Amino acid sequence: MGWTAVEIKEMRGTDAMNTFRTIEWKNNRVLMIDQRKLPGEEVYVECETFEEVADCIRKLVIRGAPAIGIAAAMGMALGAGSISNDSPYEKFAERMRTISEHLAMTRPTAVNLFWAIGKMNRLISERRGRKVEEIKNLLISEAIKIQEEDLRKCMQIGDNGAELIRDNSVVLTHCNAGGLATAGYGTALGVIRSAFRQGKNISVISSETRPVLQGARLTTWELERDGIPVRLITDSMAGHLMSKGIVDSVVVGADRVASNGDTANKIGTYSLSVLAKHHNIPFYVAAPTSTIDNECLSGEDIVIEQRNPEEVTHMDGKRISAEVNAINPAFDVTPAGNIECLITEVGLFKKPYTKSLGRLKKKDQ
Amino acid sequence: MGWTAVEIKEMRGTDAMNTFRTIEWKNNRVLMIDQRKLPGEEVYVECETFEEVADCIRKLVIRGAPAIGIAAAMGMALGAGSISNDSPYEKFAERMRTISEHLAMTRPTAVNLFWAIGKMNRLISERRGRKVEEIKNLLISEAIKIQEEDLRKCMQIGDNGAELIRDNSVVLTHCNAGGLATAGYGTALGVIRSAFRQGKNISVISSETRPVLQGARLTTWELERDGIPVRLITDSMAGHLMSKGIVDSVVVGADRVASNGDTANKIGTYSLSVLAKHHNIPFYVAAPTSTIDNECLSGEDIVIEQRNPEEVTHMDGKRISAEVNAINPAFDVTPAGNIECLITEVGLFKKPYTKSLGRLKKKDQ
Repeated sequence: MGWTAVEIKEMRGTDAMNTFRTIEWKNNRVLMIDQRKLPGEEVYVECETFEEVADCIRKLVIRGAPAIGIAAAMGMALGAGSISNDSPYEKFAERMRTISEHLAMTRPTAVNLFWAIGKMNRLISERRGRKVEEIKNLLISEAIKIQEEDLRKCMQIGDNGAELIRDNSVVLTHCNAGGLATAGYGTALGVIRSAFRQGKNISVISSETRPVLQGARLTTWELERDGIPVRLITDSMAGHLMSKGIVDSVVVGADRVASNGDTANKIGTYSLSVLAKHHNIPFYVAAPTSTIDNECLSGEDIVIEQRNPEEVTHMDGKRISAEVNAINPAFDVTPAGNIECLITEVGLFKKPYTKSLGRLKKKDQ
Repeated sequence: MGWTAVEIKEMRGTDAMNTFRTIEWKNNRVLMIDQRKLPGEEVYVECETFEEVADCIRKLVIRGAPAIGIAAAMGMALGAGSISNDSPYEKFAERMRTISEHLAMTRPTAVNLFWAIGKMNRLISERRGRKVEEIKNLLISEAIKIQEEDLRKCMQIGDNGAELIRDNSVVLTHCNAGGLATAGYGTALGVIRSAFRQGKNISVISSETRPVLQGARLTTWELERDGIPVRLITDSMAGHLMSKGIVDSVVVGADRVASNGDTANKIGTYSLSVLAKHHNIPFYVAAPTSTIDNECLSGEDIVIEQRNPEEVTHMDGKRISAEVNAINPAFDVTPAGNIECLITEVGLFKKPYTKSLGRLKKKDQ
């Protein structure tokens, strides 16, 4: 199973594949599509330093768990590039520790960020004593490999999950777990893309995902480009539509999955999972195995990022409310019990997750 | 029990009462605060014709079930004013039927609109054969009476419901069921105001209420003016905060209550009721008895207004999504089973509502 590089390249040219680039390593710079400006403007930000990459992650130029993992890896490659080839290994390694800490401090919840930084740091420590120039090149290759593998994984997640999507059905998704949140193709949207590519007659309901409106701005943009039917709703409408029998399944992405299956994802996901359960609608999480954090035993161990309340009280820089405080947790935790199935690149995982994910851990070691 | 006119007047001057005027009959014109412009601007719209009033209702210059009932009654009084005193009664009555049909067509869900129009029409038919000038003056008095009674009812709803709000607790409310949605004081916010006036240490969480943001724009504005602590959230955050034990009760208003207790209210209310039930948090509905529609046997009989999808896809006239369709039901129906208690001006009603509300009907007849 799995897609070859040639197949991916071919599909890039077809309608069913997103044709934009979320992030790219090019001429020793990192290019990212500015997701804050979509769908109005399609502009790319060019980062020359790791600080700029960190800033882009923090300010949501790039977002989505797998995508910020790729960005952090490329940020480390950029940071390494700024160190002189004449540096002794120890000095280089020490500088890289500082750089990786800087990148790790951008956003606390998505584990893929730490996973990617960890992968890059392992490469450095395994090359102890080797020439700095050689390690720098290896770091670039590794960052690009993380990106390419993510695209391949997303396609596999899509194909694995597509079997869960019934023909003639309506799929609700939250936030953007699409090509923009990954190297391409997407996780939740990967499942939708694969089902659509298989010829299934499906349509999507995208919840707008306040406060940052990733659903309204990014998911509708991606799906519309692919010709996949999509209707937008406010987050508050999901329960009503479920009660009317309009929603057949829910598929979302994940920022971190604890080893018991509890899943952190964009704020609002938890409410959707409770509503789906109440209406007997299957609720699926689609994510690469890099999103599973074996060090987290349950959702209680997951740090929830609290973002600036102005994201809630303001819109386009203009205050929408009276002069009051706001609460702005960026994520919430969906308990494993509400998740019908976890869709990954290596297959589908079901309850009890401690057992099913435990086997995965063993296999990987 | 009940507040006297003098008490109301005195309280208008205190901090705990809203000091704005939602709607007012003045010099044979209808003044309304333009709720679309709050909280940024505090401007009043002046209507000289019933068509202008209908337009204001349709365009949400004024909204909230009791408030649009008052507006419709004043609109009818305005319409009557435009008919010549020399008209024969039959011609006057016929013209008034056209005017009331025009006003009735503005918004389909809130029953208070039809209740107020019905009240005005009854006055006309009961004065068959009387001088047109006399009926016109009576219609003005009746419209002002509907307004004054609504304020008195809201205060009574507030006092009746306050006992349900525990000291040192956090109350979540949705949309705006406040002074702006009524003649003043509010229904759900009336309960909160009374609890606060009684010295209870409470704070409010206001869900922003997309797509029109009545929670963000109006509820925070009203409560902030009254010095009642309030924090704003997006609609998607309610479930997460409930799971963290942060919400002690939910109080909302209503646009129509069926005789079995099923309640239509702003879109998102149903989701909140399911989430509250899931977390064992009491869920209260506060509304005047004019909101109870005995002709509706259940929520299935309630017409849900579908509004322009641009309210979802656009903000401030600017598109926020890609070029896709949106769904925009303005209300949803909360099943009676999810409602702990219905708070009215004549007391608290509990399950089974068919029985408890049935007794009310008998008493009123």
